[in-house]
Amino acid sequence: MKRVAVLGSTGSIGVQTLEVIEGGGWGYYAPLLACGRNIGLLMEQIKRFRPEAVAVLRREDAEAIRRERPDIDVYCGESGLLQAIEETEFDMAVNALVGISGMAPTMKLIEKGGVRIALANKETLVAGGRIVMSAAKEAGVSILPVDSEHSAVLQAFRGNEKNRIKRIILTASGGPFRGYTRERLEGVSVKEALAHPNWAMGKKISVDSATMMNKALEIIEAKWLYSLAPQKIDVLVHPQSIVHSMVEYDDGAMMAQLGTPDMRLPIAYALTYPERHSSGARRLSVKDLCRLDFEEPSAEACRALNLAYAVLQEIADTSKDSPAIALNGANEALVALFLEGRIRFVDIVDTLEKLIAIHEPARAMSIGDILEIDAKARKDAERLAGIKTLL
Amino acid sequence: MKRVAVLGSTGSIGVQTLEVIEGGGWGYYAPLLACGRNIGLLMEQIKRFRPEAVAVLRREDAEAIRRERPDIDVYCGESGLLQAIEETEFDMAVNALVGISGMAPTMKLIEKGGVRIALANKETLVAGGRIVMSAAKEAGVSILPVDSEHSAVLQAFRGNEKNRIKRIILTASGGPFRGYTRERLEGVSVKEALAHPNWAMGKKISVDSATMMNKALEIIEAKWLYSLAPQKIDVLVHPQSIVHSMVEYDDGAMMAQLGTPDMRLPIAYALTYPERHSSGARRLSVKDLCRLDFEEPSAEACRALNLAYAVLQEIADTSKDSPAIALNGANEALVALFLEGRIRFVDIVDTLEKLIAIHEPARAMSIGDILEIDAKARKDAERLAGIKTLL
Repeated sequence: MKRVAVLGSTGSIGVQTLEVIEGGGWGYYAPLLACGRNIGLLMEQIKRFRPEAVAVLRREDAEAIRRERPDIDVYCGESGLLQAIEETEFDMAVNALVGISGMAPTMKLIEKGGVRIALANKETLVAGGRIVMSAAKEAGVSILPVDSEHSAVLQAFRGNEKNRIKRIILTASGGPFRGYTRERLEGVSVKEALAHPNWAMGKKISVDSATMMNKALEIIEAKWLYSLAPQKIDVLVHPQSIVHSMVEYDDGAMMAQLGTPDMRLPIAYALTYPERHSSGARRLSVKDLCRLDFEEPSAEACRALNLAYAVLQEIADTSKDSPAIALNGANEALVALFLEGRIRFVDIVDTLEKLIAIHEPARAMSIGDILEIDAKARKDAERLAGIKTLL
Repeated sequence: MKRVAVLGSTGSIGVQTLEVIEGGGWGYYAPLLACGRNIGLLMEQIKRFRPEAVAVLRREDAEAIRRERPDIDVYCGESGLLQAIEETEFDMAVNALVGISGMAPTMKLIEKGGVRIALANKETLVAGGRIVMSAAKEAGVSILPVDSEHSAVLQAFRGNEKNRIKRIILTASGGPFRGYTRERLEGVSVKEALAHPNWAMGKKISVDSATMMNKALEIIEAKWLYSLAPQKIDVLVHPQSIVHSMVEYDDGAMMAQLGTPDMRLPIAYALTYPERHSSGARRLSVKDLCRLDFEEPSAEACRALNLAYAVLQEIADTSKDSPAIALNGANEALVALFLEGRIRFVDIVDTLEKLIAIHEPARAMSIGDILEIDAKARKDAERLAGIKTLL
């Protein structure tokens, strides 16, 4: 019996994690569920998965749950979540929280120790890679990726020596706007940006996938997750999303992981690694494989990727991590503005380029520093995007 | 310093093995070279690679070499090769002999013990799988495949548990006649059959690739090499020969090995397994990857594959291995007849179907039994193909 805390249980990854646990028949169980505001779904999950504890964002939600389910420990707010992590017993945690708010819980999990972290929260590594990975190493806590690309890389690493890696190739579907010209991109709507051709995902990641910022963040994530030099991290566009990533070795062999676009596979792999168990993912058919294309990212797509490489170069040159934190925070703010209809799609990357061009690298020694740099970057991004903050 | 005996040194695989050893800079060296009749090339190899011993087929060749190079041990004939294996010291052997004649040397290598066998000789396993694998297991000798498909499977196995394998998928280029109708196949020439679209290979294997018998033999080989049930061995046609094979696991993941069509990669992998070293193989470019297609084998191509499945079913039902021995021997005889212009291309599989339909399974307990069944199958095949043997 493995006990899995699910942080972000009502989001896309959280829901699929619970499906995997339920469907796998491996005897896994979820003692802690944490979510934001989707209390309706949480109540259903409580009935179905019988957690010992839940954590929610708002006080009123916590009180409502306490009234209905006095048998459950109910925690509330960001500090409540940290307390829930401390006080609940479990063997692993899936961190599927969205955005920078996932970082403090990751650090808390590391501090708690003795747990495996299945990490779907990109921001934890993009912004906090150095601090998080070194704390995890010291605590002997392993961090396993829950994202199709980094899971594929991990799978393609197995049984090979690290010093033989020539490069990893993260595949990118290219999103809904693959091949679009700048002109055409200027007119795209929120609805179009959310319509990913292959994956059903949350809103933030769908927009990131359309701007290619998702891949840019994955480049930075890969650097920390696998201690790889940026020159060893490449991106190829693969519109079918069947090959989830590849690793090239110096004998000329490339190992690739293929699968249907189904997050249950990387979720299950992170939970059962290094073993595999049935994940519930649909198997590949010949139809899925009939044609697989690969191409270099377009000049327009490279703008986002180049931001990642520039940021990593800056970090390598200065040992100051703020450029990645700023890129991540600013992107998160800009995506929110785009979803609210306050800026255009193209304003996202345009603004990020401006922001990184003028960013002054600073050292981030703690989660506090990171949050501060993040908050400033969000404000700077809004200002650069021409948004007047109401205060 | 690893000492590698190269059996079949003047053939395509042998030549590439020596290239890999020379170019790898790993400090490998070839103390024994064995070949058939290509003495001109062998003399060059002697100068360049300075073996301690050589083995050739004909007495007159052996004598000529002895006169010119009295410093080298020269062995002659099939028994001479076995003696050379016994008397020369080496750590591993590449068995790249062509046809059934490669089997006795494999057994001799196992008997010698303390060596790794890098096996390019398919017939050893197709005809002698049961005997060879159990002898190797008993002697603690490991047998590693030198063929792009089985090497890819081995690479895709690494770091995974055997009980999680759903199936392996051997890829087939489809050869020069992919998509040809029966009618069109009836008119193809030897030259056309030898013109493989992707791989430069020996004549026998080029024709086998055109008939799909190469893949049929690989299915049987896979059964013995990896103790897999026939239902777990699939074939997909992949015209670009970039994905060399795949393994599907029961979580839905498929691990694939990609590479340029260059035998130096699987040769190097078999020599340095489980490590990787530079192989000299050209790296994949985006151009190589730009489009990868997969399709089910055509009805015509399935005829050869179905022979393999029928033979494996027969073996599973009766524990009598003769059907595979007969299929292999008859195919070898028929390919020779085709290359001599004495039968048509389509007569190869047509005759094999007739032969397997009337074959009476028999037990093969020794290499002697195998050679006897093999010889009879060759005669039967010639008779069924309408060739009158002159005796």
